[in-house]
Amino acid sequence: MSVNAWVWFIMAVSVASLGMAWIFTREVLGADTGTKAMQDIALAIKEGAEAFLKRQYTTIYALSILLAVLIFGFYFATKGSTLAWKMVISFFAGAVCSGIAGFSGMFVSIRANLRAASAARTSLNRAMQLALRGGAVTGLSVVALSLLGVGLIFLAFGGMSNPKEVPYQIVGFGFGASFVALFAQLGGGIYTKAADVGADLVGKVEAGIPEDDPRNPAVIADLVGDNVGDCAGRGADLFESTAAENIGAMILGVALFGHFGLYGIFFPLVARAFGLLASIVGIWTVRLKNEEEDPMAALNRGYMITSLLAIAGFYAAVYFLLNNNLWFFAAGVIGVINSFVFVWITQYYTEYRYRPVQSIANASVTGSATNIITGLAVGMECTAMPVIAISIAILASYYCGIHALPGVRGAGLFGTAIATMGMLSTAAYILAMDTFGPITDNAGGIIEMSGAPEEVRKRTDRLDSVGNTTKALTKGYAIGSAALAAFLLFSAYLDQITELMQKKTGNMNYVFEHVDLSKPLVFIAALIGAALVFLFSALAIKAVGKAAYSVIEEVRRQFRENPGIMAGTSKPDYGQCVDIVTKGALKAMVAPGLLAVVVPVAVGFIFKFFATAEDPTIGAESVAAVLMVGTIAGILMATFMNNGGGAWDNAKKFIETGQLGGKKSDAHKAAVVGDTVGDPFKDTAGPSLHVLIKLLCTVTFVMAPLFL
Amino acid sequence: MSVNAWVWFIMAVSVASLGMAWIFTREVLGADTGTKAMQDIALAIKEGAEAFLKRQYTTIYALSILLAVLIFGFYFATKGSTLAWKMVISFFAGAVCSGIAGFSGMFVSIRANLRAASAARTSLNRAMQLALRGGAVTGLSVVALSLLGVGLIFLAFGGMSNPKEVPYQIVGFGFGASFVALFAQLGGGIYTKAADVGADLVGKVEAGIPEDDPRNPAVIADLVGDNVGDCAGRGADLFESTAAENIGAMILGVALFGHFGLYGIFFPLVARAFGLLASIVGIWTVRLKNEEEDPMAALNRGYMITSLLAIAGFYAAVYFLLNNNLWFFAAGVIGVINSFVFVWITQYYTEYRYRPVQSIANASVTGSATNIITGLAVGMECTAMPVIAISIAILASYYCGIHALPGVRGAGLFGTAIATMGMLSTAAYILAMDTFGPITDNAGGIIEMSGAPEEVRKRTDRLDSVGNTTKALTKGYAIGSAALAAFLLFSAYLDQITELMQKKTGNMNYVFEHVDLSKPLVFIAALIGAALVFLFSALAIKAVGKAAYSVIEEVRRQFRENPGIMAGTSKPDYGQCVDIVTKGALKAMVAPGLLAVVVPVAVGFIFKFFATAEDPTIGAESVAAVLMVGTIAGILMATFMNNGGGAWDNAKKFIETGQLGGKKSDAHKAAVVGDTVGDPFKDTAGPSLHVLIKLLCTVTFVMAPLFL
Repeated sequence: MSVNAWVWFIMAVSVASLGMAWIFTREVLGADTGTKAMQDIALAIKEGAEAFLKRQYTTIYALSILLAVLIFGFYFATKGSTLAWKMVISFFAGAVCSGIAGFSGMFVSIRANLRAASAARTSLNRAMQLALRGGAVTGLSVVALSLLGVGLIFLAFGGMSNPKEVPYQIVGFGFGASFVALFAQLGGGIYTKAADVGADLVGKVEAGIPEDDPRNPAVIADLVGDNVGDCAGRGADLFESTAAENIGAMILGVALFGHFGLYGIFFPLVARAFGLLASIVGIWTVRLKNEEEDPMAALNRGYMITSLLAIAGFYAAVYFLLNNNLWFFAAGVIGVINSFVFVWITQYYTEYRYRPVQSIANASVTGSATNIITGLAVGMECTAMPVIAISIAILASYYCGIHALPGVRGAGLFGTAIATMGMLSTAAYILAMDTFGPITDNAGGIIEMSGAPEEVRKRTDRLDSVGNTTKALTKGYAIGSAALAAFLLFSAYLDQITELMQKKTGNMNYVFEHVDLSKPLVFIAALIGAALVFLFSALAIKAVGKAAYSVIEEVRRQFRENPGIMAGTSKPDYGQCVDIVTKGALKAMVAPGLLAVVVPVAVGFIFKFFATAEDPTIGAESVAAVLMVGTIAGILMATFMNNGGGAWDNAKKFIETGQLGGKKSDAHKAAVVGDTVGDPFKDTAGPSLHVLIKLLCTVTFVMAPLFL
Repeated sequence: MSVNAWVWFIMAVSVASLGMAWIFTREVLGADTGTKAMQDIALAIKEGAEAFLKRQYTTIYALSILLAVLIFGFYFATKGSTLAWKMVISFFAGAVCSGIAGFSGMFVSIRANLRAASAARTSLNRAMQLALRGGAVTGLSVVALSLLGVGLIFLAFGGMSNPKEVPYQIVGFGFGASFVALFAQLGGGIYTKAADVGADLVGKVEAGIPEDDPRNPAVIADLVGDNVGDCAGRGADLFESTAAENIGAMILGVALFGHFGLYGIFFPLVARAFGLLASIVGIWTVRLKNEEEDPMAALNRGYMITSLLAIAGFYAAVYFLLNNNLWFFAAGVIGVINSFVFVWITQYYTEYRYRPVQSIANASVTGSATNIITGLAVGMECTAMPVIAISIAILASYYCGIHALPGVRGAGLFGTAIATMGMLSTAAYILAMDTFGPITDNAGGIIEMSGAPEEVRKRTDRLDSVGNTTKALTKGYAIGSAALAAFLLFSAYLDQITELMQKKTGNMNYVFEHVDLSKPLVFIAALIGAALVFLFSALAIKAVGKAAYSVIEEVRRQFRENPGIMAGTSKPDYGQCVDIVTKGALKAMVAPGLLAVVVPVAVGFIFKFFATAEDPTIGAESVAAVLMVGTIAGILMATFMNNGGGAWDNAKKFIETGQLGGKKSDAHKAAVVGDTVGDPFKDTAGPSLHVLIKLLCTVTFVMAPLFL
């Protein structure tokens, strides 16, 4: 097939996937919407979520415009108007596509919750399918829009006639996507956990009422939070991962232009398109064998089908575009396997069937302090296995690349790029499972609050617990793919500096390839990169604490001033809580977000003044150290936080199954404290670090001329 | 003065310092020992501490002999018997000197506690002086023995006639010291916190009895822990820092042999000797102006005097040994200033006069979960300022070095080495202040348990609170100096690889100087280095949890089976608790300790199989990445843990002053949980990481031939 045909293929698959998302949307919206009581609750959630998202994206786009002006001015002054326009256009394209993907996913998920709840009254299978298909809208729009966006920008910038330069010019798309993702994830993450912590602490611990009790004034805010954090936030995160990976891999394809021509550059997009097709089939096939089956088993079957189809599609792509070079195919398979391994490790550390979570539950018997200590230890311990997995994946795929094209510069990294594609080929399906989480969580809340019968509650509880698992797994998957994507972007950054230096010095043989930690400046930059991760996490967590504190005060105030709430005779003021969290989250997301943008740029700008004739690139080299060691610290810290938080959560759930004294025991109270501490870890700081890792790469890539 | 005269000077100062330590010992032992009740308690502490130390060092030396056999075999096989003997002898010398320093410090501190308690019955000044001079025995023996040990080994190995090779051969001394320090700090840290957490959780939280209440069966174990953790553990830690810094700086002095000859190599030892003299004077001068003065003010005056004298001594050393090159003097001053800055930052983040601790206290009002969240955020946040300080210190001293000897290779790093010397020149005084902590803590316990009058308690409470501050400050100082010492040892490692490769290839112009993170293998090694820090911390914390759990069970058992204990009619079985913690701590220290030794060696050994003709040193380069990024992660994690733990501790103390409801309020209960969580952070994992950082350097240096 000609390159043009493949371009059409990519576009067609993207559009078809969006069409599929539309079909799923119609299916979900057409489903039964239950009783009036259920509709009222769903309406409150919908309104809260929409109000938050509207205000959040207003803030994000205001910041984006500010940044775009700066980028334009900088590029206009240093590189001329053409490149300046291209940068700004691709930046905005990335920012807008990310916004659309997030918004459309949310649009469906805050409607699917009610439909899934209604379906749960009669059929577990139907409820599960509605939730998954509602989630699939997020998954498909995210992946398809990132594919379409990158593809169209490439074509619009004249990529077909100038394929060796244009990939560098579309990094702005990745930067726009990561900029939006950072704030979407931070804001959503702060929102969801401030509401959750606030609702839990006063509701469960102080007032002693169960989760999702309608008497809790923060309960709607809590349900809204699941949508804006898990759905919109993670959607933006993975939009960014796929976009960054598309671009990073295309840039690496440029290095192999002599071997594969345009095919090498389009390979990432074709592989992604096959992955989309595989995910669509996977989502369609998910159904329960009978009403008693574990929904997780059905979802796992779908994941397995998606993975196998993705591998087949990968083979086709390698066959047609990479001369059937089986070493490259092997690299792709390594990526797919790596995603399985990450999911398995995450399960081991966060499910209560296994030792780690049980050790936290046991420690709860001696109080909240030992619960916390054990949880922190488990979180730190669980970084080891993913590091080994990612190390093996990077090395193995690198050596696949070297064997694929012996002696060719860049072949090893292209192998790693292909492994990343393999890992991300199931992204749409994974994302559908992820958004399944907030939908079922909301469905459970709607059922609980509308006072449905016990039997229905049991059904939604089962779905909710599966949703908790899928949310945790997605985080493991997201950090693994973020690590691999970042690894690609490092090389893209080094290539970018090479190109800039070649132009600057006129020496076309110049290669910038060392990031030498033994230089004091580079070492210090590395130290700063790692410290940035700590400081960023601190700000994110503090933001939750601050916003949660205002929720707690508000809930206490309502309980105090209106005793009818606890008695059940009068309704609490949900809107006031929603409003307070919205304001708090939006205010709090700005500082950590800007920190992530400013620090790497500042290091490059300041350290370049230490440049000497022998070492002209010390500024750029220092920035590379910030990226790389920042990424290392980010991977570890995010894993620590995601899995630690997930483990605390499930230790509590383990006790709630009746173990160690069960609900209302002292052990349970201690476990609730651990769960509360874990919340900002796993739903705010951890996921925001995924985005931080990639943002560091894209922002420095775009600002690279500043460091020389 | 001739080089020989300076050698005599170094030896004379070392011996004189040991003599001074002896005088302080006599003074302390000659002081009044109080009432029979007090003596009984002190005896129980002394016996517990000695029993633990005896068993601990038996384990440590058994492991040391095992390791020595391995080292000997390895060197014998690859380098011949002379070097093998030298390595093993210097390894044992380091291990034994560290043990003697730790043991003699402990010998005095577990006797000084009783004398300080007795003196507190009449005079705050006298009590303070006894505690400080008791602490000074640790400080002086640690620094003097590390100086004497390094100096004598250098002479014994023929350093005067072969000064360019011998410094490399004495790295074994540093390895021995760090090997002992790791286990001393780990074992002591696990002991002290397991006992503390156990005593607090059951005593304070469950039974509602105050700290140091004689009814608590774990109270003696708790008091023993202060000695074995803070005194013996930190002593071994700083013994290692000074030894490593001496050796690292001597190796860097070799690079400047052409400029300064032996003077450059002996400079570190001379500067250290002046620092010892300064510390002795400083310790002598500490006295309260009157009984109402804040003891911290008196200690700070002594610190100021020590620092000023150390600067003067530094100037003398630069004048006589480094041709009065004032750039090098400036580098030394940077080091002294850096130690002040570190102390100040630590104060800001851990004292309740400032915002961070107050924010934790305020968060306690909404429960233990918010207390923990805020504490974790403060801990992560507080890594930023030390990173900036250390970055500025490294850079500024590096550029001082470059200006001192323009165009000379190695001059920049020698500048950094001199800054490290500056920072460590007050080590003996700082260590005296540090050991002051456990002595006053114990004195308070003895007074409390022996039922002394309120007025005396107030006096010991004041001293105890000052002791808490000095302990926290020392940790800040220790991590700062560990970071600088590690930075020296990196270069020593790179030099070692250079030398080995020159011998191997016969190319005497070969220089190994790049640690290139952009190579996939090196990046992965860096990732592993950082993950090692997380895993090591997890194991250390888990060890505390495990040992604490057995204490809790034991205390509960005693309360349950013997109701007379709570009624005050029968005495609890203190010995049983001491025994349980001892066993638990010793068992638990082995796994994390071996991990720290095995991982870097394994990386080097495995990764060398990826070596190619173009890249023959990939194994050694990967190990360098483990060191450097492991150090970065270690600095951050240790700072997070030390300061986070200190902040939690003082947030509780802040509430105990009557703020936010005071003692027994819900806020106080929440703050106790935070304090308990912080304990293994600040007294086990954090300080053990200081040692880990240096051990990584020394173990890889010694095992370097294995990586090529």
